[in-house]
Amino acid sequence: MTRARWIVCLFVLCLPWVAHANQELLGLQTDDRQWVMPAKDYSATRFSALKQIDTDNVKQLRPAWTFSTGTLRGHEGAPLVVGDTMYVHTSFPNNVFALDLNTPDVGRIKWRYLPKQDPSVQAVACCDNVNRGLSYADGKIFLNQLDGHVVALDATTGREAWKAKNADPKVGATMTGAPFVMKDKVLVGVSGGEFGVRGHVTAYNLKTGQQVWRAYSMGPDVDLRLAADFNAANPQYGLKNQGIETWQGDQWKTGGGTTWGWYAFDPDLNLVYYGSGNPSTWNPSQRPGDNKWSMTIFARDVDTGNAKWAYQMTPWDAWDYDGVNEMILADLPIGGHTVKALVHFDRNGFGYTLDRTTGTLLVAEKFDPAVNWASRIDLQTGRPVEVPAMRTRAGVNSQGICPAALGSKDEQPAAYSPRTGLFYVPTNHVCMDYEPFEVRYTAGQPYVGATLRMFPGPGGNMGAFIAWDAAKGKIVWSNKEQFSVWSGALVTAGDVVFYGTLEGYLKAADARTGEELWKFKTPSGIIGNPMTYVGPDGKQYVAVLSGVGGWAGIGLAAGLEGDTEGLGAVGAYKKLAEYTNLGGVLTVFSLP
Amino acid sequence: MTRARWIVCLFVLCLPWVAHANQELLGLQTDDRQWVMPAKDYSATRFSALKQIDTDNVKQLRPAWTFSTGTLRGHEGAPLVVGDTMYVHTSFPNNVFALDLNTPDVGRIKWRYLPKQDPSVQAVACCDNVNRGLSYADGKIFLNQLDGHVVALDATTGREAWKAKNADPKVGATMTGAPFVMKDKVLVGVSGGEFGVRGHVTAYNLKTGQQVWRAYSMGPDVDLRLAADFNAANPQYGLKNQGIETWQGDQWKTGGGTTWGWYAFDPDLNLVYYGSGNPSTWNPSQRPGDNKWSMTIFARDVDTGNAKWAYQMTPWDAWDYDGVNEMILADLPIGGHTVKALVHFDRNGFGYTLDRTTGTLLVAEKFDPAVNWASRIDLQTGRPVEVPAMRTRAGVNSQGICPAALGSKDEQPAAYSPRTGLFYVPTNHVCMDYEPFEVRYTAGQPYVGATLRMFPGPGGNMGAFIAWDAAKGKIVWSNKEQFSVWSGALVTAGDVVFYGTLEGYLKAADARTGEELWKFKTPSGIIGNPMTYVGPDGKQYVAVLSGVGGWAGIGLAAGLEGDTEGLGAVGAYKKLAEYTNLGGVLTVFSLP
Repeated sequence: MTRARWIVCLFVLCLPWVAHANQELLGLQTDDRQWVMPAKDYSATRFSALKQIDTDNVKQLRPAWTFSTGTLRGHEGAPLVVGDTMYVHTSFPNNVFALDLNTPDVGRIKWRYLPKQDPSVQAVACCDNVNRGLSYADGKIFLNQLDGHVVALDATTGREAWKAKNADPKVGATMTGAPFVMKDKVLVGVSGGEFGVRGHVTAYNLKTGQQVWRAYSMGPDVDLRLAADFNAANPQYGLKNQGIETWQGDQWKTGGGTTWGWYAFDPDLNLVYYGSGNPSTWNPSQRPGDNKWSMTIFARDVDTGNAKWAYQMTPWDAWDYDGVNEMILADLPIGGHTVKALVHFDRNGFGYTLDRTTGTLLVAEKFDPAVNWASRIDLQTGRPVEVPAMRTRAGVNSQGICPAALGSKDEQPAAYSPRTGLFYVPTNHVCMDYEPFEVRYTAGQPYVGATLRMFPGPGGNMGAFIAWDAAKGKIVWSNKEQFSVWSGALVTAGDVVFYGTLEGYLKAADARTGEELWKFKTPSGIIGNPMTYVGPDGKQYVAVLSGVGGWAGIGLAAGLEGDTEGLGAVGAYKKLAEYTNLGGVLTVFSLP
Repeated sequence: MTRARWIVCLFVLCLPWVAHANQELLGLQTDDRQWVMPAKDYSATRFSALKQIDTDNVKQLRPAWTFSTGTLRGHEGAPLVVGDTMYVHTSFPNNVFALDLNTPDVGRIKWRYLPKQDPSVQAVACCDNVNRGLSYADGKIFLNQLDGHVVALDATTGREAWKAKNADPKVGATMTGAPFVMKDKVLVGVSGGEFGVRGHVTAYNLKTGQQVWRAYSMGPDVDLRLAADFNAANPQYGLKNQGIETWQGDQWKTGGGTTWGWYAFDPDLNLVYYGSGNPSTWNPSQRPGDNKWSMTIFARDVDTGNAKWAYQMTPWDAWDYDGVNEMILADLPIGGHTVKALVHFDRNGFGYTLDRTTGTLLVAEKFDPAVNWASRIDLQTGRPVEVPAMRTRAGVNSQGICPAALGSKDEQPAAYSPRTGLFYVPTNHVCMDYEPFEVRYTAGQPYVGATLRMFPGPGGNMGAFIAWDAAKGKIVWSNKEQFSVWSGALVTAGDVVFYGTLEGYLKAADARTGEELWKFKTPSGIIGNPMTYVGPDGKQYVAVLSGVGGWAGIGLAAGLEGDTEGLGAVGAYKKLAEYTNLGGVLTVFSLP
């Protein structure tokens, strides 16, 4: 066999399904008729080139059909559309429905998957029993269950293809994030930063469910999976042994840095991007040090899991500013060049733009002017310039910190339009008083160690939906909202941007000006992410899950009444009960 | 004081609120902008003179706003609209929401009433934990709780004005029907025919909640409250002592005849009309006799509770053909005269037209041709002419009986349009095999005594929505439906008739021809009753609760899986799980 022939064999015959899975999703993510992964595409833009619905006609948008999910707690995430089928997930117990998009029985249930989970697992989910959605590849639907199982379902029948145990709820490790498929792997994270879980991401073989690699957020370098050239371009971010040396003693073993947010993938660089969460506990006095690599953006090689670079946004966190929010990949004009950028809106209130090849920090600016825990980010060192009075410490009630623990933005994902060059960001505008206290680690028990009181930021509104120029680090327009905007964003080539509100409105705004063009009151508050697709009838549809809950809605979702100040965010969102009520409902919109 | 002055005092000063409450509702029930009682008006027509929405433009109807009730079991009944407020009830635990109809925050929650009930009460509700809605009068909202309490809420604040205990769940007595206000009284019934409850209706003072009178369905005449001239016009229906003599021994004490259906009121005759349910048990061999006054239409004086007439439709019931379905009052041309008629579509499959003044039977014809347990009703005696093979008896599995136990129609209420002169009737088309067996009475335990298998009627469809000429006893048009039509009907002066389907569609048909003009898929199957009102903006709205459940949907609602043949209706409706899912959602429609 000649060498050329051998290479043909290797790529065409010997690894046919690897190439297949990779090629399949590379194609599907650019097909605007479908929506096959949580953020529409690998770059996590939540941009659709569909434009039947535009700024002129969006005011005629109305519900075309609806579907009740049958569970009442918070509904984050978005449905998928693959071919003529929509896949809808629910809050715990993480049911999945395959709905027929064909007329005349649009919404007919092709199959339902009702996993049996131990209900006690709900007690170890910190902030409502949410689930952020499904992924599709290779004829399978992938689901993360709250009880720590990753499940692959036959997309046609709903039958289990495989099931893997990824997290142990007995130690507080659950799963709320969406699985993410790249090439021949399903990547999943873990939740449980409030239970002292040591975060990790794990890749499973999408065909078999066998574990391929796992990489931790802290601990020995071998657990961290550092590439040989790790952080070569930015050694000031930290190099070897940081996952142990920036902690006292064995604290890294209960170090947090969980990975329950969103993932993005650059096929050309073969890198996957995601962020790690807060260090455990919430009491910084108990864990002096940078606590690496909590609060960090990771870039890992998809095949090996090795980290090419990592950048910690909030060293020695004292505010619970998890770094798990979405990473959006876009090619942006910065400094006269087109840069392969990664844009990230962090809980800590700064919008970061980095070179996604190297991790080099290019822009870091506040996307809410109220942010006051740091004055700026030093672009050379990458470290925040803190405001000392706002650094919390045990026994001191630090007051008036902005943002609150749930951040200037939480998991609610932003969108990016290559047409406008703007990022559309759902934000919180909530501040807090924060008093850490000593707490002991007990496996499976809350490991929080802080008392919080949250309240609306300056001006009295608790959120805004903004457009952001990530090359300059500037707000272009901002629409104030009474409550936090806890839904994701969707932007289309019709230059319409969609987002939901906690009151339950799905809103459409002009992507260039922010002008509100349309709104509709869905059955419950929206913390899900709008998506769009083309039905078998050739029409463009916009779909969103309503179902109030999540951290902002936990008071309502969990039926907490009366004085809830001690429960963190709950108090500030009490007024929400005047506007909406529990319920998981999919609403699908179209033009008449 | 002159006599004239004394009379003035009596009516104007001494009883001002009696006159007030009476006059208030007499006026409100004719105000088509509002919907202040379950069936729109005292005649229970579910007819609205609104006509902004008509047969030409109804195809443009679309959801204007929505509201999740936050409970998942079956949602029967309809919301009320009083002024600029909508009052929405839920399935157990019978929450009540007052929603603001004013823009810009339409649907905003003015107050919520969340009663605390012992969850164990759900175990003694036979056919899903439904509630059929609220009533309004005198600034109060009246609610029947499943746990047997009647509650009066301040309509402005939601605070309890009074609360009365009407039924004891410990013996299986619950409340699922809607309260009904006439003059100064709130009339309520009781559920529990499957638990050997002895049915009664009870009038409470609407101001104070004090019991005014109670009348039983069986037992001594003093308990029955028979007027001196009881059944004077039709002595063949039965006169004195029938409530004891038509039972063996003490069986009347656990005789059933519960009163969980709908009520109508003729202010001129001062009579209230309602029906009683099945005799307990479902095993007729165990209780030989007519079992009076189960399965009976009662006409009672509102002030005294005394029965002016009673007509038993199904003597010695052997099929569970409860007589509780709605009574619709209409003046109809029969035999060359205009007759003050009462029209009733019974579970037993016959549509009855009676003279509501005297109870005289005028017309009784099958409203589903499949009905085969009786060949006809003898208009002279009022008794059915039974088909002997279809009479069930202990130890025999009688097969192919039509209708099934849930009747050619169950509680889903019909509507009447004075414009077309037609009645619009949601129907079931389901047959059964029925085998009674011996059962012992134990207080609070099911007292059923029959095994059933239900299946679609001839043709394979399980329901139809029909138009009925009650003067002639003839079907005018009939729209087949795959499943039973378990929603109520609404008909308007736009000559549009609305009804919902178990798949979740709200449909609009031409009231004259039956042509389907429009449909919309709501989040869940519809067993609620559509209603219409005018919003503060002057627009006509149509609202309906979706939320699959009730007897037809109990398999889905209670999460019964696998082989459910033994559970009565459940097996036949199994396919419903392919179309819809649990969830309580209000959808409010308007033209663009």
